[in-house]
Amino acid sequence: MSERPPTSHDVARAAGVSQPTVSRALRGDPRVTEATRERVEQAARELGYVASDRGRSLATRRTGRVGVVVEDLDNPFYLELLDELHERLERGGTRMIVFTPRHDDPHGLERLVDGSIDGVVLTTTFLDSPLPGLLRDRGFPFVLLNRVVDDDGVTSCSVDNRLGGELGAQELLDAGHRAIGAVFGPSQTSTGRDRELGVRAALRAAGVALHGMRRGPYTYETGHAAALELLGVDDRPTALFCGNDVIALGALNACHRLGLRVPQDVSLVGFDDIAMASWDLIRLTTIRQDLRRMAQIAVELVLEPPARPERVVLEPEVVRRDTVGPPPA
Amino acid sequence: MSERPPTSHDVARAAGVSQPTVSRALRGDPRVTEATRERVEQAARELGYVASDRGRSLATRRTGRVGVVVEDLDNPFYLELLDELHERLERGGTRMIVFTPRHDDPHGLERLVDGSIDGVVLTTTFLDSPLPGLLRDRGFPFVLLNRVVDDDGVTSCSVDNRLGGELGAQELLDAGHRAIGAVFGPSQTSTGRDRELGVRAALRAAGVALHGMRRGPYTYETGHAAALELLGVDDRPTALFCGNDVIALGALNACHRLGLRVPQDVSLVGFDDIAMASWDLIRLTTIRQDLRRMAQIAVELVLEPPARPERVVLEPEVVRRDTVGPPPA
Repeated sequence: MSERPPTSHDVARAAGVSQPTVSRALRGDPRVTEATRERVEQAARELGYVASDRGRSLATRRTGRVGVVVEDLDNPFYLELLDELHERLERGGTRMIVFTPRHDDPHGLERLVDGSIDGVVLTTTFLDSPLPGLLRDRGFPFVLLNRVVDDDGVTSCSVDNRLGGELGAQELLDAGHRAIGAVFGPSQTSTGRDRELGVRAALRAAGVALHGMRRGPYTYETGHAAALELLGVDDRPTALFCGNDVIALGALNACHRLGLRVPQDVSLVGFDDIAMASWDLIRLTTIRQDLRRMAQIAVELVLEPPARPERVVLEPEVVRRDTVGPPPA
Repeated sequence: MSERPPTSHDVARAAGVSQPTVSRALRGDPRVTEATRERVEQAARELGYVASDRGRSLATRRTGRVGVVVEDLDNPFYLELLDELHERLERGGTRMIVFTPRHDDPHGLERLVDGSIDGVVLTTTFLDSPLPGLLRDRGFPFVLLNRVVDDDGVTSCSVDNRLGGELGAQELLDAGHRAIGAVFGPSQTSTGRDRELGVRAALRAAGVALHGMRRGPYTYETGHAAALELLGVDDRPTALFCGNDVIALGALNACHRLGLRVPQDVSLVGFDDIAMASWDLIRLTTIRQDLRRMAQIAVELVLEPPARPERVVLEPEVVRRDTVGPPPA
């Protein structure tokens, strides 16, 4: 064995693939075939090249710290994501520093690139944020997690949110609903915009118009207030697509307050599949994102940045529980 | 005006009090009278001495980073606490680094004192953890938040958990319950031990024996599994004291699964008053801790360590919602 620790280039040589393929295979990128992944993993095992060692060697060489920019520390989705990121980073001997900028204030940039961290995971970036472009210009490692920006030159990891929106609307259409309302997330976020595009596309394909709509931040309060308004009228929708699970929880509680039964009177679909969605009292039908996988990929991408920007897109999945039923007769 | 920024000693001189009293007054310590606090605040204002400036000057002098050790990143209570701590630290220009040790592994010590942070807030420390003693021996600034250890030489900030346990049990006794069960937190934590002591004291004073009991980690799963067991028998308790809100949420969902109505069939009391406790679907009666105040005090104590260890104890408060009623006839 050589004295220096093995690199991804050694693994690439041993497995007969390119170095980027090694990175992709080891982080479970869906574009790598099962057979290639197995070959790469075997080579990595034989050489003693493992993800945690990579993380640790990076940590020793540099600051050993990675920043995570998150705006909604009180949103359970981001907390679960943070928990996963933290777990993944710690496993590689890397510490996590949490930043919460105010609306991606570009002045936050200097705090990120002042040498105290090796790279940064951006989780709540707005579509028009200058931060990704500024970080790229500085050559500073970063990855967008759960968000994308309209720029191919930026590395990101997210689910296909447009497809997720389509799947959510389709659940409601398939159950027989035609009076479908929606409470979307902010249109200046890629998740808000893309989920809305998906819902609208599915409804259009079915020849159904949106029956009432609100937009707002991804909070319980947004869902609660919007549902009170949308469902508090005579000609109310029989179903609501909710921009995320937290909005859906707000809507579910509003239904309870209005004396409307779910799903007998109103059907609800969420997005994310946070832990609460599976509680007995809640049993939310939702569009699942694989948080664990997303966090894993984001950590790999920030600790070992790809030579060229990569946009990893995972598939969302429908989780059927008890909040969708046929419309009331 | 002098050129150097004013210190707490200047404020003390101007207000005619001791320096420790200035620290206590500005962090809202209940031992300082209203009149003294007002005098200190006025002096601080006149001298231009404010909490955020203090934080910032410390940050400039040192690393500008404070560690927070937390074990349960997926427990909403700690997430709300983390959010508050983060907010308080950022306001003073200080960054938060999150550490999650495995059961206070004493080897975690070196990671804390390696010069990368100025001080640390410990939030999930076990009663028998060696970490507080080790940190004190090194002279490293730290504060226990929401926990205490059996050692007067350690600075901490918590509510009176024993009193909280008494208040919770008393709510159930006052509603007429005599078959009272409990799902306590871990007995190796001060919160678990002290709340249990309080509950037992209140029941003993009323001449009532505990009607079924479980202990476990502060998780939804603990409450869910324990309630299924305790309430799934013929001679079931008519009320449960739950060690925290997350346990109570697990118990509430278990009641739903068992077809038991809350509070008609079973009454529940929680502890903490997390945001979810006030949701329409939940409306949990609970013992409130003032998170915001606790986080504020902890940040002050870690950024400006008192000359002698201080044990700040806040008062818990009963929040009456809809999960406590009279026992079934």
